[in-house]
Parts: sequence; C-alpha cells; structure tokens
Amino acid sequence: METAAWRPRTKRGHRTSELWDETPHGGYYTQDDLREIVAYAAERHVTVVPEIDVPGHSQAAIAAYPHLGNSDVVDTEALGVWETWGVNPNVLAPTEEVLRFYEDVFTEVLDVFPSTFFHIGGDECPKDQWKASETAQKRIAELGVGDEDGLQSWFIRHFDTWLTARGRRLIGWDEILEGGLAPGATVTSWRGYAGGITAARAGHDVVMCPEQQVYLDFRQAGGEEEPVPIGWVRTMEDIYRFEPVPPELTPEEARHVLGAQANSWAEVMDSQDRRDYQTFPRLAAFSEVVWSELPAPDARDYEGFARRMDAAHYARLDALGVAYRPKNGPKPWQRRPGVGGFPREGRPPRV
Amino acid sequence: METAAWRPRTKRGHRTSELWDETPHGGYYTQDDLREIVAYAAERHVTVVPEIDVPGHSQAAIAAYPHLGNSDVVDTEALGVWETWGVNPNVLAPTEEVLRFYEDVFTEVLDVFPSTFFHIGGDECPKDQWKASETAQKRIAELGVGDEDGLQSWFIRHFDTWLTARGRRLIGWDEILEGGLAPGATVTSWRGYAGGITAARAGHDVVMCPEQQVYLDFRQAGGEEEPVPIGWVRTMEDIYRFEPVPPELTPEEARHVLGAQANSWAEVMDSQDRRDYQTFPRLAAFSEVVWSELPAPDARDYEGFARRMDAAHYARLDALGVAYRPKNGPKPWQRRPGVGGFPREGRPPRV
Repeated sequence: METAAWRPRTKRGHRTSELWDETPHGGYYTQDDLREIVAYAAERHVTVVPEIDVPGHSQAAIAAYPHLGNSDVVDTEALGVWETWGVNPNVLAPTEEVLRFYEDVFTEVLDVFPSTFFHIGGDECPKDQWKASETAQKRIAELGVGDEDGLQSWFIRHFDTWLTARGRRLIGWDEILEGGLAPGATVTSWRGYAGGITAARAGHDVVMCPEQQVYLDFRQAGGEEEPVPIGWVRTMEDIYRFEPVPPELTPEEARHVLGAQANSWAEVMDSQDRRDYQTFPRLAAFSEVVWSELPAPDARDYEGFARRMDAAHYARLDALGVAYRPKNGPKPWQRRPGVGGFPREGRPPRV
Repeated sequence: METAAWRPRTKRGHRTSELWDETPHGGYYTQDDLREIVAYAAERHVTVVPEIDVPGHSQAAIAAYPHLGNSDVVDTEALGVWETWGVNPNVLAPTEEVLRFYEDVFTEVLDVFPSTFFHIGGDECPKDQWKASETAQKRIAELGVGDEDGLQSWFIRHFDTWLTARGRRLIGWDEILEGGLAPGATVTSWRGYAGGITAARAGHDVVMCPEQQVYLDFRQAGGEEEPVPIGWVRTMEDIYRFEPVPPELTPEEARHVLGAQANSWAEVMDSQDRRDYQTFPRLAAFSEVVWSELPAPDARDYEGFARRMDAAHYARLDALGVAYRPKNGPKPWQRRPGVGGFPREGRPPRV
C-alpha cells in the first residue's frame, strides 16, 4: 500500500470512500531526527529497519523527479503526489540513471541507520508501464531477463549485490520471489505463509507476517462500531494463536524463520491514538508469541494470558497513556461514524 | 468561550462556519494524570492554576447534572453537550444545592492542585435565564442583592470566602467586577486594560491579558494563508511591544499588577501542531516582556530581539520539534483551506 506524505489532501477511510480531508499534509524528518529515533530505539534494544520501496510505490518520488518514471509511457512531468492509496501504476523506469539515483539515496539512508537489514520493498509493482515502455522492453532484451518479472528481479538483484558489498543485507516483500530471488535476499512474507516457506526451503532467511493472521490494521471485532473497519476480524485470541513457524518446515528450514512481524499500515489511522487503538492490546499477544516458548496454537493457554492482561498489563497500558481498544468496544471518540472501511469475512487459516 | 470536551461532533473553524467534524470527541484526565502534570510543571518552576468556570460556561455540567441548571426556565433534562462554541445561555441556577455541588468539586480540585490561586471563571454569564427564572428572582429578593449582576457577585463572593477559608485565593475574569468585586478577588483582565486598572486602583491584584494585545489564538499575519484566521493581526513585534503595566497607574497601584498572561484559546486548533503554530514564536516575545526589564513599548529594541531569535532561538524551537509559524508564512500542512475564521481589523491600542 502507498500513502504519500506531501499530499494536497487526504482520502478519509478506505480508498473506495468518497470522503476527503482537505487539509494539505506534509512534513519531514531531518537526518538528525532520524538519528535521534535510532538512538532512542537502540537504548531499548530495538533496531530500526528502514524501508525505501522500489520499483513500485514510487509516485511521490516520480512526482518530484519525473525522470525516475516511465516517461515514454506516461507524462511524468504532469504527475502530482497521490492523494489516495492502494497499488499504484506509476513505477520506476528500469534505467541506469534510476539505479544511480537510488544508490545515492540508499547511501544517505545507510549512513543514518546502522541496521544490518535494509528493506527495499519490492511489493505491488504492476508491470503495465514496463509492458508498454519501449525503454523497458529494450532493457529486457539487452539484459536477457525474458520478461517484466525478470526485469523486477534484475532490479532487486542489483541492490542485493550493492547492499552486500556494503556489509548489509537486503530484505523485501515476498513479491521479490517472482522472477527469481536475489542470492542474498531475505523475505518478509505478507501475502501468506507460502512465500516464506518457498524462501526458507531455498535456504533464504524469512520474517513471517502473513496478512491473514497478523495485520494489526485489520479490525479487532465485527459490528458497526469499529472505526473504519478494514480486513478480517482478528481478535486478541487469534493473534495469540498465531504460529510464525509453519509445521511443514523441517528443523533445518525452520531455522531460516528469523521471527515474525505484525504490520500495521496507517492509511485509515488519523492520529497516534487511532494507531494505539488498532495496535493495542493485540501487540501484547503478538509479543508473547514471538518472545516466549509456546505450545502449538490450539494448545496455548489463552485464558491464562487474558488473566495476566487483566491482572497487570491493562493497568500498565493505562499508566503509559496507550489508547488501546477496550474489551467492550471503542469509546465514543474512538469511533469514526460515517467513514467507510472495507471489511472482509473469514477465519484465519490454521497452520 | 466554551468548548465542551465530551461532544458528539465538533464545529470546524469559527462558530459561524458550517463545517463539522463528525468524529465524537472526549476523554478525561484521572487525578493521577493531573498530579503528574502538576509535578512535571513544578520541576520546571511552573505552577499550574486550575480553572472551573462558574456560573456561566456550564452547559456540559448541566447536561450531566440537570439540577444544576435553571430548570424552571429551560428543560435541562433535554440539554446535550454543546457542539459549538461562544457565549452560552445555559448558566448555573443560583441555589444552595449548586453551591454545595461546586464546593465538592472544588474540594477535589484543590486536593490535586497546590496552586495558591484558583480560577473560578466568572466570565460571559448571560443573565437571560436568571431574569426569566422565578427561583433566581426569589433569590435576588431574599439576598437583597438588587439584580442579576448582584446575584453573580453573590455567587463569586461565596467562593471567595470559601477559598480564603482554605488558604487559597480566588481569581476570575474581569466580569467579576460587575455587581461589586469580592473582597479577596484577583482579576484576570481580558476585555482590555480597564478592568485591571479599576481593580488595581481598588487595591486588588491583577493579571493583565487584554485580548486587544496578547491573545495568541488571534492571527499573526493578514492574507488568505493563515489557518482559520481569528481576531486582529498581532505580529511578534506587536507582542514584543505589549506593556503589562498601564502608565496611568501610580507606583502603588502598579504593584498590584502581578504579571501578564497570553491566552491561547483552542477552539479552532485541531492538533498540538496547530497550537504550536499559533503560540510560537510569539510566546518568546511575550516571555521577554514579562521576564525582563524593558523600556517603554516604542523604545524597545525589537530588531535586537529578532536578531537573537535568528541567531539561536529558532534553532532551539526546531530541535524541540515545536511547529512554530515560519517567518514567511505557513507550510502547506499548516494551512486549513476552506475552513472559515473570523478576522477583525485594527491596530493594538498603545498604552
């Protein structure tokens, strides 16, 4: 998904909503701001992993630097910053000039973030512009990569080599499997477990974050009162029974599962409190899953966990001022009446 | 002015605007939250002065406890929380029951705030309901206070006595002069200097905050780009030339001017950043006025102050992440296109 920071207005709710917030949106972090965040996290034993998404999700960059886009297909000079979100057709041109530009950007980012891993996105890159672009088609022929998937793979491989030469490791969304995984790549498996399983079996490291299981932007309960309900209902118990390591992996393959992450995309979260609401208390269940030894999902003592939440942890969240979702549903000011979401139905697949 | 916290929706912009934010608004501080704020401020040598506004600006209290209102004039059971702002006709009933209720509330508030001063509001209390209320008219006759202004004065005097008996001092907006100032009262003079001058000459202490001079919610520049422009244009230089002590006061009278305050009402400020924008950098000019010895307004070295801002203070605000108004006007995301304000024209009167 993509939301551009410097946008003239903002879609309210799901991208199918017709509501707009007409306040321009923008702002930036200085390199010093970012170093402060990195240092703050490091004091708490947290490593911040930066992500610069290529070659998709790039309209904001193309709006600022039109030569980065497929200008033989679309008038990139006329492109503004996107005001809504979702999968965006405007992707980077597969040129040497674009590679040099991003090498410069990555060099500055690496200087700020000491993280071993560097996330290059790689997700949701529609191939329509490359199919229509003479430049891209010539490039496919020159490189001998066969098709547009091969071109994307070439793009990612370039940065895999580039990052490895600098002592870093490339990580990307599971779309980077398409067209062949770059030799040093690690995969964040978001469209399900399948990409992660394939990568682990091929000897690549994996971080599991299947959207069917642990997307915290997805709604926590059914009913009309959840603010801007998106995705499947995933309760705290569902999260507590999430299993990062699929049982079909051999012990050797399973060692490639470095851990899991719970994504929480913010397109419909209009404030820090809304983000707190969506993320907590489920993040506590997720933390116990990834930071402790638990039995198989169905054998886990969820009631015991819930008792510990009641006995101590909700009080901690209260003391910290975390605006978590109350057990009996949102407080009035946590609702967003009239702002449309995009709920989906279905239970999480068990692994 | 009045904005109720627990409201079903929120007026966007000036109260004459037709825009609404349909998100319910609410929340509260626990007593522990307040003690934390008081302690945080005290560590920085700041005393937090609480305000509970009586007998006007009380619709939220009446909506929760209908017996507090003039129920022989208006159906207080049917009153909701006000969704807009300004001067509100729903005021407290002048009954013993209401006094007891507020004594209970004040007792809890005094326990949290060690401040010597306790602000009881006293402003913007329309007398229409009391004029129409048989209960209020009987009360005027019983008390022998003559009219509705006398009734308001009786109300404030009651709490002056009550606070004094508890070792505290009552402070109120300059409307508390109407009907006769309570013996121990201190005045925050907001409608101009006049109330403060009258009070100081009568031997009462005064805090100067004339809206013509130092209301920081008022706009900082002319033009279309200021967010939700309210009130008169008051530049940083205007604030720097604000004089808290009117020259017509004798030295003895002038000693009653305890200081000044710069009010910054938040009805059109939708976020902390908007409040930063409205308050800074002008608060720096105000601080120098009240915390240093300066010559008469026209003789002040504003250029020297501006140079010191450029040389050091803007950088401090940047480092602290304060979203102040840039000298050349708002950044795009600091604007509020389409949200109506209520600008007024005129230079500040010089004293």
